Amino acid sequence: MITQVLIGILSGAAILTAGILIGHYGISQSSSGAPPSWLKDVAKDVDESLIEKFLSEVDNIQIQENLRELTKVPHMATTAGDEQTVQFMLKRWQDPETGLDQAWREEYMVYLSFPDPKNPNKVTVVSPSDTVLHTAREKEKSYTPDQDDPEVVQPYAAYSPAGHAKGKLVYANQGKPSDYQLLNQTIDLRGTVAITRYGGAGRAAKAINAAPYGVLGVLVYTDPLDINDGLMSDIDETYPHSWYLPPSGVERGSFNTHYGDLLTPYLAAKEETYRIPAENITGIPHIPIQPIGFEDAYTLICELGEEAAPAAWQGAFNCTYNFGGPGFKSTSYFNNSDVKLDIFNHEEVKNSSNVMGVIRGSVEPDRYVIYGNHRDSWVHGAIDPSSGTSVMLELTRVLGSLVQQGKWRPRRSMIFGSWGAEEFGLIGSAEYTEQYFAKLSERTVAYVNVDIAVFGKWLHLRMTKNPLLICYLFAAQVDAPGLDSTSVYDNWVRYANRTSPALGIIPRVGYLSGAGSDYAAFVHYLGITSMDISYTYDRTKTNARIYPAYHTAYDTFDYASRFIDPGFVSHQAIARTAGNVLIRLADSLVLPLNCSDYAEILEDYLGTAMTLYEHQLRARNISMEPLKRAVASFRSAAAHLDRVIRTSDLANETPLKVRRINDQLMLLDRAFLDPLAFPDKHAYRHVIWASSDAGKPTFPGLADAFATAESSGQSRHWDKVHYHLSVLSQAIEGAAHTLVDVI
Amino acid sequence: MITQVLIGILSGAAILTAGILIGHYGISQSSSGAPPSWLKDVAKDVDESLIEKFLSEVDNIQIQENLRELTKVPHMATTAGDEQTVQFMLKRWQDPETGLDQAWREEYMVYLSFPDPKNPNKVTVVSPSDTVLHTAREKEKSYTPDQDDPEVVQPYAAYSPAGHAKGKLVYANQGKPSDYQLLNQTIDLRGTVAITRYGGAGRAAKAINAAPYGVLGVLVYTDPLDINDGLMSDIDETYPHSWYLPPSGVERGSFNTHYGDLLTPYLAAKEETYRIPAENITGIPHIPIQPIGFEDAYTLICELGEEAAPAAWQGAFNCTYNFGGPGFKSTSYFNNSDVKLDIFNHEEVKNSSNVMGVIRGSVEPDRYVIYGNHRDSWVHGAIDPSSGTSVMLELTRVLGSLVQQGKWRPRRSMIFGSWGAEEFGLIGSAEYTEQYFAKLSERTVAYVNVDIAVFGKWLHLRMTKNPLLICYLFAAQVDAPGLDSTSVYDNWVRYANRTSPALGIIPRVGYLSGAGSDYAAFVHYLGITSMDISYTYDRTKTNARIYPAYHTAYDTFDYASRFIDPGFVSHQAIARTAGNVLIRLADSLVLPLNCSDYAEILEDYLGTAMTLYEHQLRARNISMEPLKRAVASFRSAAAHLDRVIRTSDLANETPLKVRRINDQLMLLDRAFLDPLAFPDKHAYRHVIWASSDAGKPTFPGLADAFATAESSGQSRHWDKVHYHLSVLSQAIEGAAHTLVDVI
Repeated sequence: MITQVLIGILSGAAILTAGILIGHYGISQSSSGAPPSWLKDVAKDVDESLIEKFLSEVDNIQIQENLRELTKVPHMATTAGDEQTVQFMLKRWQDPETGLDQAWREEYMVYLSFPDPKNPNKVTVVSPSDTVLHTAREKEKSYTPDQDDPEVVQPYAAYSPAGHAKGKLVYANQGKPSDYQLLNQTIDLRGTVAITRYGGAGRAAKAINAAPYGVLGVLVYTDPLDINDGLMSDIDETYPHSWYLPPSGVERGSFNTHYGDLLTPYLAAKEETYRIPAENITGIPHIPIQPIGFEDAYTLICELGEEAAPAAWQGAFNCTYNFGGPGFKSTSYFNNSDVKLDIFNHEEVKNSSNVMGVIRGSVEPDRYVIYGNHRDSWVHGAIDPSSGTSVMLELTRVLGSLVQQGKWRPRRSMIFGSWGAEEFGLIGSAEYTEQYFAKLSERTVAYVNVDIAVFGKWLHLRMTKNPLLICYLFAAQVDAPGLDSTSVYDNWVRYANRTSPALGIIPRVGYLSGAGSDYAAFVHYLGITSMDISYTYDRTKTNARIYPAYHTAYDTFDYASRFIDPGFVSHQAIARTAGNVLIRLADSLVLPLNCSDYAEILEDYLGTAMTLYEHQLRARNISMEPLKRAVASFRSAAAHLDRVIRTSDLANETPLKVRRINDQLMLLDRAFLDPLAFPDKHAYRHVIWASSDAGKPTFPGLADAFATAESSGQSRHWDKVHYHLSVLSQAIEGAAHTLVDVI
Repeated sequence: MITQVLIGILSGAAILTAGILIGHYGISQSSSGAPPSWLKDVAKDVDESLIEKFLSEVDNIQIQENLRELTKVPHMATTAGDEQTVQFMLKRWQDPETGLDQAWREEYMVYLSFPDPKNPNKVTVVSPSDTVLHTAREKEKSYTPDQDDPEVVQPYAAYSPAGHAKGKLVYANQGKPSDYQLLNQTIDLRGTVAITRYGGAGRAAKAINAAPYGVLGVLVYTDPLDINDGLMSDIDETYPHSWYLPPSGVERGSFNTHYGDLLTPYLAAKEETYRIPAENITGIPHIPIQPIGFEDAYTLICELGEEAAPAAWQGAFNCTYNFGGPGFKSTSYFNNSDVKLDIFNHEEVKNSSNVMGVIRGSVEPDRYVIYGNHRDSWVHGAIDPSSGTSVMLELTRVLGSLVQQGKWRPRRSMIFGSWGAEEFGLIGSAEYTEQYFAKLSERTVAYVNVDIAVFGKWLHLRMTKNPLLICYLFAAQVDAPGLDSTSVYDNWVRYANRTSPALGIIPRVGYLSGAGSDYAAFVHYLGITSMDISYTYDRTKTNARIYPAYHTAYDTFDYASRFIDPGFVSHQAIARTAGNVLIRLADSLVLPLNCSDYAEILEDYLGTAMTLYEHQLRARNISMEPLKRAVASFRSAAAHLDRVIRTSDLANETPLKVRRINDQLMLLDRAFLDPLAFPDKHAYRHVIWASSDAGKPTFPGLADAFATAESSGQSRHWDKVHYHLSVLSQAIEGAAHTLVDVI
């Protein structure tokens, strides 16, 4: 009986088990069907072990070899050297084992400016009897074979008009409006030639500011005070003995205020695109300008006559910087002589390429994380831009290998851009944003730029970005180069920090309010959340305005590997940090963008604006209340969205809810665009980050409008302040509306 | 034994069943979790039975009663009558049983123009000795008590300046530029007053075109030829005997070329918003203008002297329309007399309200389907706009009831807008789009406008829309009013059709290229796919320019219910058609938008442009190839997306794929926006649908630029043609890029 019962129980149990198994596996969930296979994918978050794997595979020696290859020859935009780098990028990105899903080139016909190799620009000192008393160097002195490459472009100011200028020399400090104004109080500037030093004003501005005073031509040089901590001797102090600029080194550059192709504003520069007449271009000099080395500048400045310039104008030369008579001292060998510029630059429409590559996203291919850097240099461009390109190539090698091996595919798509003709005015990236305006506006999550990856020794992280990007975490995970058990984050906080009301002591980041590199079109024209990352030097150790070989013939592999980043460990840290950012932007379930950070900066800006402007505006019956209300709306809307994100179990909700929140975050910066906010600034549309001349840490359009009104006192200018306040308040309120409940 | 076996089998079966049940229901699918409850919702398509239910519940008598309530008193913008309609809308939309999820008002301070009730505008004929020989009627004749309401605004031209004009009368036909040009060849127009008839040119244009010739004031009237099929007698021919305009009827209107609040372009008109000085307003007359009835026009025109005007200028009066001497015939009682306008209009910033209501979407609340109509009228406004508002209220009653009863909630959110101050220049809707620019741009699927729901008897559907909207199906499902077993679709095709290369004979639809109603800001400023629906009359039965009581004191409930739509069955057909559109836009899994329709119209436009312009452009070295290539790219991209939609099993794929395709469709119209394409046109940004003066069925900016260049012959104008070609080609290429594979 017991046996029978036992058998009964056992068979019952067996039958029950069979039933359970049939029920569980044999019958599909007919009411709702079996869970579809994509369910796990759409809910997946970033994989930390993948990030660890990425970080461990980023290799400093690979970066070094990338740089060696990229800097073999000068590769100024549209030259044969540039084409070599195009082919190199394509080969790497199309490699079946380590390349991307796809890579191709995109071409634009862009307006560039070059010197004439057969007719080099000349700067001379000419006596009244037309004897040439001094001729400035036409090319930089050679210390390594790199400088002897025939493709090294002679120093020149791109977009300086061709022409001849002859006049008595004056010293105009940095060529700021206030510099010429002060100088003009002492000297009649008509018919003079001005020498200026780099810094303080944009390159083109030094000539544009001079022209109204009747100045005929302008020279510009780098003072050893600003770049070399005063050191000047190439016998033992400057490169090749250190990172400092040799006496004959000359900073080249684009003397162009705008960004993007100058003949096709707002239009991609294709062959048949309408081009404005060259005489309608604004923002470039109308008088000749030429850069020279401080060796020649020394010869000229120390001979200048008349009054001593103010203390703030003095540089590192062992003489007093005088204003100039105009012209030289009566005791000088140059007495009564003129300085003469013979400039033979010419403009040309040339074919420039971007190289593009993509990794397709698996779950949301229509969301783009874009990473880019320019490819063109002035000469060999080891640091600018090839340090960034070497980092990009290492990053795509590691990611590409993972993709090609089938080990990983990002949730969102990744787009890599190797931009052309940046040095002439961010042209490749700007044309790209013009051509694909709609698509990029709709779909881009963020843009990450790494141009000069490493600025120098004594290092810490430098980051400029829209506040929206949560950056701190990205940096925390990476070890600081050369510092055992210190993270990039800790090292950064040590050298550059600020106190946030919400977060305590955090790293200091800059804002992308200028057009210093290819992020400009993404931030200012498209309104895309962006970030620019580099490793930089400790400002307590040097006063150099930038790394000293910048835009000279000395920015070579030798220079980079001996003085900027021996062992390439800082490059490695940047590759790791940037890759970490990139993977998190592409793979996180909820985008790593924080709108409350934005509220903090808006409140900061508002506080400054209230302090600086409220009193005077109230006196003119212009209320700042709408702006105050808008910032308060934004703060509360941002807090609301943060709360929604914090309190939602997003991995288990409909993927459309995650997408909705991500769209709110992704499109937030777009809400700050107003194409009519800055009618006088080409392609600046972002009312929070546009460039500003007023130099106040507040809303740029408001600061500029206020400065103009205050200086002119005209009621139409006060009207413009009121108008811009309305534009700004509406944009901030509009942005706030996008963060609250969607309906 | 058999019993035992049987029991054994039975218990075994029972246990097995229990096991199966436990297995099936009791154990969650542990490998991937149970299918989440939202899975069915995200894959759900439109429910045809719900649409049937909606169609059956739309009630003509409810619409009639809505109209009765809305037209009790005149409700010109910002008057007490307007406020009554605000309260009425709020009450209906906040009704707990038939209302929406939420309803509220939004206010703007807008710039309006009114006559002075204490000092009515006067039009008189004055003899040389200052005797008043004739005074035009100050108000329309009463036939029903409606016309006696003290709130009936006297006929006036909104935004006509106040002022006094006296001069010899001339007849200037429709006041087009060509009319004044022709007239000026015969008569020195300086110091004259011109009388014009409605039609041919915009209201404001009739005065703006006159001013350069020295004309001092303008009258405008409706000729019986253009509105009454020639009929003139109120004894038996005109209202209250028919739908025709009585002799004293006067069309009021806004004499304003732009849309949106005139003092706050691109800014929502809030209290503290910056306002431009009124003297900077463009697009309104600078000389007085006043509308009069044809009774008075008859008295004036038939007395005019000198040459007969051309045949095309003759109207329905039983006299010859002469140019005027200037002035009256020598044989006339008015011989040597002047016509005098005394206009006392004043401008005022007043508080105008939009009433807003929403139904929250269940699955994609961040996608908006917007439906709207203005609420303000000139007088009682039975047809314009209350016919549309009555339809909207019936539609929201049926949908609101379904929502309140828990029977239905749309996939996407629905927003209903009852706009204020449309009659003065689409102000309420324009301010709304300015205030919520970012949010609406990002999220709006489509805008549907029903203003004048029914234009007249002898009916068929009239639809203007972006080609993107698939409209045919919407109309097919609804029965045509008064026609057994004929659908709205069949009846429409019968009266208005065209042959499509792809689809054969299909209904003819218009394009939303003007600013005739509140769709303007949605199409032209935001680039949102839009549709305007109404029932209209058969043009073979009448030549009326519009329904004859338009903007007069006769547009009353009596007029509407006796002559426009007895029984309100056409209103019902519009409510059904519009509701059908709305539900499909909100509930369809894949949005009912067809990008290949867009390709067809672009090819049409291109064909016309090639025929009209290619020869002359080639002669000037301006290539149309980029435009041709762009249209071809668009066609192939549209075909590609169509194929993706056709070949995908979207209900069983990740909801993010459906969303991706829907975003491509939703945002397509946005890709055609260029805020800099039409610098001279306020708030026109859509390069395909902007208004055009050239009157050619092709790309508007190209047509206008070409017309200007052809007439001036200046090379800078030919440059503008080339420039606009580049703008256009880039926009079309950019739109095509959004339709191909997302990466």
